[in-house]
Amino acid sequence: MTAALNTVWVIFAGTLVFFMEGGFALLEAGLVQAKNTLSIVMKVLADVTVGSLVYGIAGFALMYGLSRNGWIGTSGFFLSGHFAPVAQVPIPVLWFFEMAFAVAAISIVSGAVSERMRFGSYLVFVVVGILAYSVSGHWVWNPGGWLAKLGMEDFAGSAVVHTFGGFAALAAAWLVGPRRGRFEGGENPFRPSNLPLAFVGTFILWFGWFGFNGGSTLSAFSPLIGPVVVNTMVAAAAGGLVAIAVTRVQQGVYDPTMAINGVLAGLVAITAGCAYVDTAGALAIGAVAGILVVLGTGWLEQWKVDDPVGAFPVHGVNGVFGTLAVGLFAVKGGLFYGGGIHLLAAQLVGCGAIAAWGFLVTAATLGAMRAFGVARVSAEEEAEGLDLRLHGQHAYHRGSVFSHLPEATSPGRTVAH
Amino acid sequence: MTAALNTVWVIFAGTLVFFMEGGFALLEAGLVQAKNTLSIVMKVLADVTVGSLVYGIAGFALMYGLSRNGWIGTSGFFLSGHFAPVAQVPIPVLWFFEMAFAVAAISIVSGAVSERMRFGSYLVFVVVGILAYSVSGHWVWNPGGWLAKLGMEDFAGSAVVHTFGGFAALAAAWLVGPRRGRFEGGENPFRPSNLPLAFVGTFILWFGWFGFNGGSTLSAFSPLIGPVVVNTMVAAAAGGLVAIAVTRVQQGVYDPTMAINGVLAGLVAITAGCAYVDTAGALAIGAVAGILVVLGTGWLEQWKVDDPVGAFPVHGVNGVFGTLAVGLFAVKGGLFYGGGIHLLAAQLVGCGAIAAWGFLVTAATLGAMRAFGVARVSAEEEAEGLDLRLHGQHAYHRGSVFSHLPEATSPGRTVAH
Amino acid sequence: MTAALNTVWVIFAGTLVFFMEGGFALLEAGLVQAKNTLSIVMKVLADVTVGSLVYGIAGFALMYGLSRNGWIGTSGFFLSGHFAPVAQVPIPVLWFFEMAFAVAAISIVSGAVSERMRFGSYLVFVVVGILAYSVSGHWVWNPGGWLAKLGMEDFAGSAVVHTFGGFAALAAAWLVGPRRGRFEGGENPFRPSNLPLAFVGTFILWFGWFGFNGGSTLSAFSPLIGPVVVNTMVAAAAGGLVAIAVTRVQQGVYDPTMAINGVLAGLVAITAGCAYVDTAGALAIGAVAGILVVLGTGWLEQWKVDDPVGAFPVHGVNGVFGTLAVGLFAVKGGLFYGGGIHLLAAQLVGCGAIAAWGFLVTAATLGAMRAFGVARVSAEEEAEGLDLRLHGQHAYHRGSVFSHLPEATSPGRTVAH
Repeated sequence: MTAALNTVWVIFAGTLVFFMEGGFALLEAGLVQAKNTLSIVMKVLADVTVGSLVYGIAGFALMYGLSRNGWIGTSGFFLSGHFAPVAQVPIPVLWFFEMAFAVAAISIVSGAVSERMRFGSYLVFVVVGILAYSVSGHWVWNPGGWLAKLGMEDFAGSAVVHTFGGFAALAAAWLVGPRRGRFEGGENPFRPSNLPLAFVGTFILWFGWFGFNGGSTLSAFSPLIGPVVVNTMVAAAAGGLVAIAVTRVQQGVYDPTMAINGVLAGLVAITAGCAYVDTAGALAIGAVAGILVVLGTGWLEQWKVDDPVGAFPVHGVNGVFGTLAVGLFAVKGGLFYGGGIHLLAAQLVGCGAIAAWGFLVTAATLGAMRAFGVARVSAEEEAEGLDLRLHGQHAYHRGSVFSHLPEATSPGRTVAH
Repeated sequence: MTAALNTVWVIFAGTLVFFMEGGFALLEAGLVQAKNTLSIVMKVLADVTVGSLVYGIAGFALMYGLSRNGWIGTSGFFLSGHFAPVAQVPIPVLWFFEMAFAVAAISIVSGAVSERMRFGSYLVFVVVGILAYSVSGHWVWNPGGWLAKLGMEDFAGSAVVHTFGGFAALAAAWLVGPRRGRFEGGENPFRPSNLPLAFVGTFILWFGWFGFNGGSTLSAFSPLIGPVVVNTMVAAAAGGLVAIAVTRVQQGVYDPTMAINGVLAGLVAITAGCAYVDTAGALAIGAVAGILVVLGTGWLEQWKVDDPVGAFPVHGVNGVFGTLAVGLFAVKGGLFYGGGIHLLAAQLVGCGAIAAWGFLVTAATLGAMRAFGVARVSAEEEAEGLDLRLHGQHAYHRGSVFSHLPEATSPGRTVAH
Repeated sequence: MTAALNTVWVIFAGTLVFFMEGGFALLEAGLVQAKNTLSIVMKVLADVTVGSLVYGIAGFALMYGLSRNGWIGTSGFFLSGHFAPVAQVPIPVLWFFEMAFAVAAISIVSGAVSERMRFGSYLVFVVVGILAYSVSGHWVWNPGGWLAKLGMEDFAGSAVVHTFGGFAALAAAWLVGPRRGRFEGGENPFRPSNLPLAFVGTFILWFGWFGFNGGSTLSAFSPLIGPVVVNTMVAAAAGGLVAIAVTRVQQGVYDPTMAINGVLAGLVAITAGCAYVDTAGALAIGAVAGILVVLGTGWLEQWKVDDPVGAFPVHGVNGVFGTLAVGLFAVKGGLFYGGGIHLLAAQLVGCGAIAAWGFLVTAATLGAMRAFGVARVSAEEEAEGLDLRLHGQHAYHRGSVFSHLPEATSPGRTVAH
């Protein structure tokens, strides 16, 4: 009975987390130019297809297999063998839930390299990324992991998923280089092609996040489910609202793109602490996240790193903040609640290690691709759009309604990469 | 065990109801003009962000706190303190579910004022609206409420949510005034910009409605779950089908907008009675709703009230009808089933009180804004579109594919309101 | 307690399966021309509205009523009376889940006849199709059905739902005839109008498929839930990946439309065997499905049958393959696992019977409509688009942003069919 109810709970939550891939695809499709829409959706599809298979063959074993000195799992490849004791659900059920997390971590990167990275090279990155994610995930979420033993707390993955993904995105965006024309003029000439689609994606991500955070109890009997869900909601609302307020003051308009990223920033930031902080803490964490996402967007501008969807400000900056916030706001052990500095120190070590790991693995991979000249598409392909050149068609065709508009001719002459 | 299963059930249902906000956003985004798309999506985002926080701070207390003479809750602010006994789930779990209802009630209004209301003023309305909703919700769903004691039955909120929201929408649409040009010519010159998006929204709303009605059992052990879900499905199908048939006869075409509104009308109408009527009753209620939504759309035209998405015909007219239909079709106590007039009278008093309350509070709020000249945007802003002027960008950019089309320049010069 | 948990599980799964209708609508809306977008979405809405009512009145009885010699159910009309013992959940709960399957089967056909079939005639087809589906469903899923007794195994419906729907789609596409101009020139002149929308639809379908296959345990206590979900995920990923690889080799591009259909093909193919095969088997089945969907698309081209969304290659070809694959890959009884030929033979008989039944009933119905000249719209209506002529408006209006584009005038003069 207990096992059955836990299975229902984790499958429910895992299904919602899986659906977040649809959210990523639409969010990113809406934020890029129309001519690169299919390209980004196909990259997210690659995250799911390649990512889930790699996580099944090896990632899950590296993450939840028996630990070798706290650094890496060494058993459980191909979903069979011994696993560390993590949850009271069958291994296939746990795999499904955790697979959706691994795929989400990698999908964070897809947005940062959008509009210019080759598709074949991205497939290679997905393989490397999933394996690297699984290794650092082992450190925190495997009971034998070195960060777990250090006392680090990351309930649903501000560090494991978002800091890893956000810093991988930063490295990838930096090494693949900016879109041509992005930093040449004064103003950013690139504009989102379909913001309503981006909002669909945001609502799907938000919907899925209740599975992401709530399901991380891994048990339907946890008294934390209620507080986790409330904290998730409150932080997202505060993040969105504060981001809207900040841009209203800064730019004189209620900025929709930043509203989206504010909500997501609040969600990212509460992910580590949703089970440890009280509602007031969640409100504060969300509000700060709404400020940090605006600041982080400015930092990228200064560094001249081109991250078309804001993956780093949302997931990297707020992944780190959310992880540290546990050390500040946790009711048990948080600095602001009289818990001293110990937990905060563990959080700092933990998110530092994961940020560095995500950044370095990705930088090495993308750096090698860049050295071999296979990281990005040609200038001509970039100008014409990746959709037509790599994927053989446009995302949108007007058909008869707008038939006086020129329809692109079918290419298929060149070989896509 | 019982508590755990109830928690899973209510979280599942609450998550679906939360997702309905995505449905509202897309439905309304698809039904308005392209130049006001972001404006309406941002208003729905405000419903969720502002609304959830206000409901957490005070709304939930006003609704489910200990009752003062049946009129208002007086305890439980900031989610702590005493609450009326409503369900066998923890308070945070109940709050999450109920919060999604409160936010849905307010989102009904966002569509009715679309394409012309100021964003800042709308934020103020959300605060007032959530508090007012919570007060009238107290009357029916708090065991100590005066309408509950009168014997009124509103299972999932045809009155509490939809009549309240629908009559608030009517007042708001009336006081903010029609879009310029709406009633000047013969034919309605406004056309939906993106009906496929509206259909996405409708399917999301329909999907979420199974959580809305099914979850209102607040218990996984209720034998009503099956009948509730069947009645919800049947009424929605009947509503959609009848609305299609009526427009086919009236206009000679199978009208997609009215098909959408017919489905939603059927869902609204069955919401009060889904646990009390039999399948034949649900079929009849849905079918009548499909007729009423077409009639209600005509009434607005006669009254020269401009409700761009049909919020009043869907939620107001059918909220009242659905509430009264309990008095007619309830297997226990309904007039048509030999139950006499008593239940019908209670329903009549209840939905009358709630309709009046929703209308008056909103009329007072919007009336005051109108008196101070802050209810609606300027004629110039309305002509150019709220997206560009209040939100700094267009919803859609063609990018390079349609690069011969003029791209709007970035404003940000004026201050949005 | 057991009953309550099973109810929660089946309602959760059924809600996801219901949401697949939204997925079908968007997938098909994205794949057709802009001028026929509303037409196809309205056909899917008809599947849900007409289909659910017909399945409630008679379909469910024909399928799960007491069996007359294994061929047809004879009791349980209007959801009351005696039913075969199928699951440990109340009849309304089972109906909701099964209704979503029936509606899905019919929705497969809507895509195949898109852009040219009359709406009124399609409504008639839905009635016939739901009843025919229920009869052949009886053969397999009613414990008294003749195929069930023969030992055929179809866990979640590769045969019952997808083979039936796919062969009905083939017959319908063939008899309604190709779109004008489809096979006259060399290259296919038709292009998807909105591929991002098609991807939304695909992610929704994939999300819902976890309910489709997982929920088919009909019990939260089944140890099969984990394996079913893992197999579903793995087959979908393999199908998508292989289809991408094949088109990359064939056409030199990473084809998005085929990526979508590859994922769906993998899902269709694993549907029969998800509870019977191991993970390696699921991987093999998904991979083969990814090849078959490409081949099947080519077969239609050779036969000059116009199936705008690829309903037959996805559901027909892979429905048959998935059903037969049980006979090959089932751990118990599969040919490759030493089980001999018996199960494979039963599968062959089963999917042959269902394919023939789906094809013949649909061919008779559409053939009669064709004979009476009511199957398809006029050449003029087809040229102008079904949206404007049958549904009175366009799917997309640019509004003021693109106000220099010609807006279509409102028709409503003629009577739609």
